[in-house]
Amino acid sequence: MVREELKQERAVQTRAALLMAAAEAFDESGYAGASVAKILERAGLTPGAMYFHFKNKEALATAVAASQQQTVVPHLESEGIQRAVDTTLLWARQLRTDSVLRAGVRLGVERDALELHDATTFDAWTEILAGFLRTGAERGELQAGVDVHELAEYIVSCCTGIQIYSEAATRRADLTERLVRMWQMVLPGVAVPAVVARIDLSGARLYAAAATGS
Amino acid sequence: MVREELKQERAVQTRAALLMAAAEAFDESGYAGASVAKILERAGLTPGAMYFHFKNKEALATAVAASQQQTVVPHLESEGIQRAVDTTLLWARQLRTDSVLRAGVRLGVERDALELHDATTFDAWTEILAGFLRTGAERGELQAGVDVHELAEYIVSCCTGIQIYSEAATRRADLTERLVRMWQMVLPGVAVPAVVARIDLSGARLYAAAATGS
Repeated sequence: MVREELKQERAVQTRAALLMAAAEAFDESGYAGASVAKILERAGLTPGAMYFHFKNKEALATAVAASQQQTVVPHLESEGIQRAVDTTLLWARQLRTDSVLRAGVRLGVERDALELHDATTFDAWTEILAGFLRTGAERGELQAGVDVHELAEYIVSCCTGIQIYSEAATRRADLTERLVRMWQMVLPGVAVPAVVARIDLSGARLYAAAATGS
Repeated sequence: MVREELKQERAVQTRAALLMAAAEAFDESGYAGASVAKILERAGLTPGAMYFHFKNKEALATAVAASQQQTVVPHLESEGIQRAVDTTLLWARQLRTDSVLRAGVRLGVERDALELHDATTFDAWTEILAGFLRTGAERGELQAGVDVHELAEYIVSCCTGIQIYSEAATRRADLTERLVRMWQMVLPGVAVPAVVARIDLSGARLYAAAATGS
């Protein structure tokens, strides 16, 4: 029984090590440039260890892309529209250091990766944001007639384009600033005035919570 | 004299053939995948013919990226905000068939290309849109306090992200529809109500003019 638990724990650790090595490799070299051999070398694992968890590089990339949300969402404490805002601000902040998010961006944007993934990466973010915005709508935060799913899709599109432009212009140094301008542009058209006035775009509260892991 | 004119005309044609071949190659294979040899083969030209016009692949890519605007702007007949709207709608329409625009998108979005170009491609579009929006501001079309340059930069970012999401989701089949939703979201926050009401998002007028080359 103890031996079985140890085996399971080791399997969990191996899977996590593979995901991290794959994320770092995809972030650095893109999907085409990151070979399975390089990923295994980085993780210090054998092919057998990998094929127990992932049948090929595509499966690894899919798993990396799917774990992006896990590096942001657990740190959020707010609700409704503020939670959607915080998701984008924390994503921008974590992009500086988090390989999983950086790999997700690169896999989503590069055409080779698109041929692999279709819109799964984008749709996952859209669903998450739509959920937060739906709560906002239930709380009366959104103006009448706003389509929550279309708004979420629009925000995901804008964040994608803003990230690319910001990376090209300033290596992402002004990404947060650009996202704040996006929300300043978007909120008056979709949120009720009282909510527009109280949405916190400073991020200070948010980054402090994420840093302490709360 | 006649011989000199013929030589000049041939040089103009050679340059155009090189740009077209390079655009097609970058669109199909990306910057890294498109070798100078492939581009020359496609254009039916020798290395000597190329080096007279472009010193290397980077110079070709820069020239392709810089000629994007020429495939859209000469077809526009509107003014002010409508002209900015039309730029994005015609860009979306021409992306279906125009290799120069498709190469521009790919060079702008792929990270290898970004390392080459920085934000030049995006900034060029921002400047063009900012010019149109500035005319709109002078005509009283924009709400007080709207920063024309920030708005232009925001539109370029959104178009970039919307194009990527649309390509991933539907191979760009719904790109125009997504751009129309973008303007419906953006216009009420930046344009005066009378202008919001009369902006034409249908594109019909525009596509007809572009098709007849007027």
